[in-house]
Amino acid sequence: MTTQEKALQLHEEWQGKFETTSKVEVKSKEALALAYTPGVAEPCKVIANDKSQVYKYTAKANTVAVISDGSAVLGLGNIGAEAGIPVMEGKAVLFKEFGGVNAVPICIDTQDTEEIIKTVTYLAPNYGGINLEDISAPRCFEIEERLKATLDIPVFHDDQHGTAIVVLAGLINSLKVTGKKKEECRVVVNGAGSAGVAITKLLLKYGFKNVLMCDKLGIISKSYPNLNWMQEKMAEVTNLGNEQGTLADALKGADIFVGVSAPNIVTADMVKSMNKDAILFAMANPVPEIMPDVAREAGARIVGTGRSDFPNQVNNVIAFPGIFKGALEGRAKQITEEMKLAAAEAIANLIPDDELSDENIIVPPFHPTVASVVCEAVKNNIK
Amino acid sequence: MTTQEKALQLHEEWQGKFETTSKVEVKSKEALALAYTPGVAEPCKVIANDKSQVYKYTAKANTVAVISDGSAVLGLGNIGAEAGIPVMEGKAVLFKEFGGVNAVPICIDTQDTEEIIKTVTYLAPNYGGINLEDISAPRCFEIEERLKATLDIPVFHDDQHGTAIVVLAGLINSLKVTGKKKEECRVVVNGAGSAGVAITKLLLKYGFKNVLMCDKLGIISKSYPNLNWMQEKMAEVTNLGNEQGTLADALKGADIFVGVSAPNIVTADMVKSMNKDAILFAMANPVPEIMPDVAREAGARIVGTGRSDFPNQVNNVIAFPGIFKGALEGRAKQITEEMKLAAAEAIANLIPDDELSDENIIVPPFHPTVASVVCEAVKNNIK
Repeated sequence: MTTQEKALQLHEEWQGKFETTSKVEVKSKEALALAYTPGVAEPCKVIANDKSQVYKYTAKANTVAVISDGSAVLGLGNIGAEAGIPVMEGKAVLFKEFGGVNAVPICIDTQDTEEIIKTVTYLAPNYGGINLEDISAPRCFEIEERLKATLDIPVFHDDQHGTAIVVLAGLINSLKVTGKKKEECRVVVNGAGSAGVAITKLLLKYGFKNVLMCDKLGIISKSYPNLNWMQEKMAEVTNLGNEQGTLADALKGADIFVGVSAPNIVTADMVKSMNKDAILFAMANPVPEIMPDVAREAGARIVGTGRSDFPNQVNNVIAFPGIFKGALEGRAKQITEEMKLAAAEAIANLIPDDELSDENIIVPPFHPTVASVVCEAVKNNIK
Repeated sequence: MTTQEKALQLHEEWQGKFETTSKVEVKSKEALALAYTPGVAEPCKVIANDKSQVYKYTAKANTVAVISDGSAVLGLGNIGAEAGIPVMEGKAVLFKEFGGVNAVPICIDTQDTEEIIKTVTYLAPNYGGINLEDISAPRCFEIEERLKATLDIPVFHDDQHGTAIVVLAGLINSLKVTGKKKEECRVVVNGAGSAGVAITKLLLKYGFKNVLMCDKLGIISKSYPNLNWMQEKMAEVTNLGNEQGTLADALKGADIFVGVSAPNIVTADMVKSMNKDAILFAMANPVPEIMPDVAREAGARIVGTGRSDFPNQVNNVIAFPGIFKGALEGRAKQITEEMKLAAAEAIANLIPDDELSDENIIVPPFHPTVASVVCEAVKNNIK
């Protein structure tokens, strides 16, 4: 049986990967009177007088919503609300298992940006944070920015920032291994959707200077046709030499390739054209932009992918449970750039310098302390 | 320490009465690949091709949403979304503990009818049923009716229908005990909000003929001032003799009083004016319309309240877990009048005739088989 067949069979057996459970026994009249009427009126009255007390008396303090509109699910594209639910349930499982955070999976049955923003706003009182997931670009940028501007709880689009944090963590260690300097690296980010944009922004924030973004038509510049508003903003802060050309042109002399794009679009010849000690994170899933053995044979030094069956797995689950755990415990109102950078540094530092190697630049998702280390890094950076 | 003080302290200790838990272990690469990427893509693809498969591969089939807008919480009134959460969490606990049904507590941060309807519609794909809760009348009627008309999952406003079912169950047994005939009883329902309206409708559906509704100004008739649209409809089907007068007038010669109104508004003299073997369900909480000892002393034969410290507790928890369990198991698209009547009969029949008495006309909330008996009754009445 293939993994695919087994996964389908298991999903049928599970019929839901998460469940709600009661923390309270209600097996007696007395217990019912305390957890439900009339006793429950007491916390209600306290919260009615002071909304902030909702953190003290309800699950809000340790519960996030995992919210999608089903518009960009995995690599499957726009499959709608119902079909997105298994992924949101999976994410809810990872939140609880890795971070100890309650998570409620929610697929919203509208893809209208305004309606999504309103719906999330109406739901916000119940949750300590909002994890946006699998919402297509550029809508995801507006939805996240507008919600961040109005809600007093953290809003975090994991496809963007979770990915960016883990990529940066891997690159921090890749720089250590190769001796490259961030200020001097030519970086090519391929794929100008949600992940590509967020990765580029975080790399610039970290101190990389020379970043090129590419999309289907090649290097993004101010003259690239039909850029969306976010890509236009990115064209202002990347490609400062205003280069024109293809992905192959971009990769000539590049030190770092970060792919969040499509299978098999990087060739051995492109890798050969890169700078010495080239670093490639080829994260298209399940088939990467270039297979690790092909990349290594063509001279790449460090190759990471999204897959668990190759070394250097760049996987969001390393970051998001600890990010939210920290934000919730510290009662953060936002997840800031400083918190993201601190999380990336903390993840990178989990591997001692003398254990770093070409095939060991990032901890695996099951690292026993990664969630708590990320949690502390986030908490220490709450202003 | 009072119940109130203890309840507040416990709510702080619990910091949330429900939690989300994972049904799946993700402690290995293989497990992660099955529950999350890449395996999770398989059920997504199947559901994308056939939305109905969402029941097979996700928690939808056994998960309800408990949704309020915080506009009519317990007897506390319009306390808002945050302050309503402890009650919705309590309800979620009861769903799971008594019915084995997953329940997600949701307080929506808007009290605009159209926005609530849209929000619930957007959330519907995730749930096998919607339990509306603590929404003020008459908005609750429109919200429920419109959602029932458009959603393909059961929508059930428990304050209305759960209460009505349990009241009817208690009255069925009260008729048996007193030998009264439903067609001949004069019934007074006091309180023309959500519960009063639903009780009246269900009693008429069951076969009571002579029902008077009262509200603050007395008997509701077509000339009662400022009726809302639902009360106008009720004025058409109740009070067929077009009586005018106060609650005291209504109770003269009445066989049955059902109170979902306010504390201490029924006096001993009013009870004395009622017919022989009077039946009173005085369900204002926590202080009933008349205390049971006062009512009995004034000649009432059967007295029920909402309280657990008196005999004949008329409590929604007897009904709603089994109602939804049955609707979910039978994949009902609606909870129909037939299902409600069947549930009431099933609850009534849990007490054998030879065990019925003035002080034993309804099973307690902790009856071991009530949820499964109600579940079967509901399932057997799905068309």
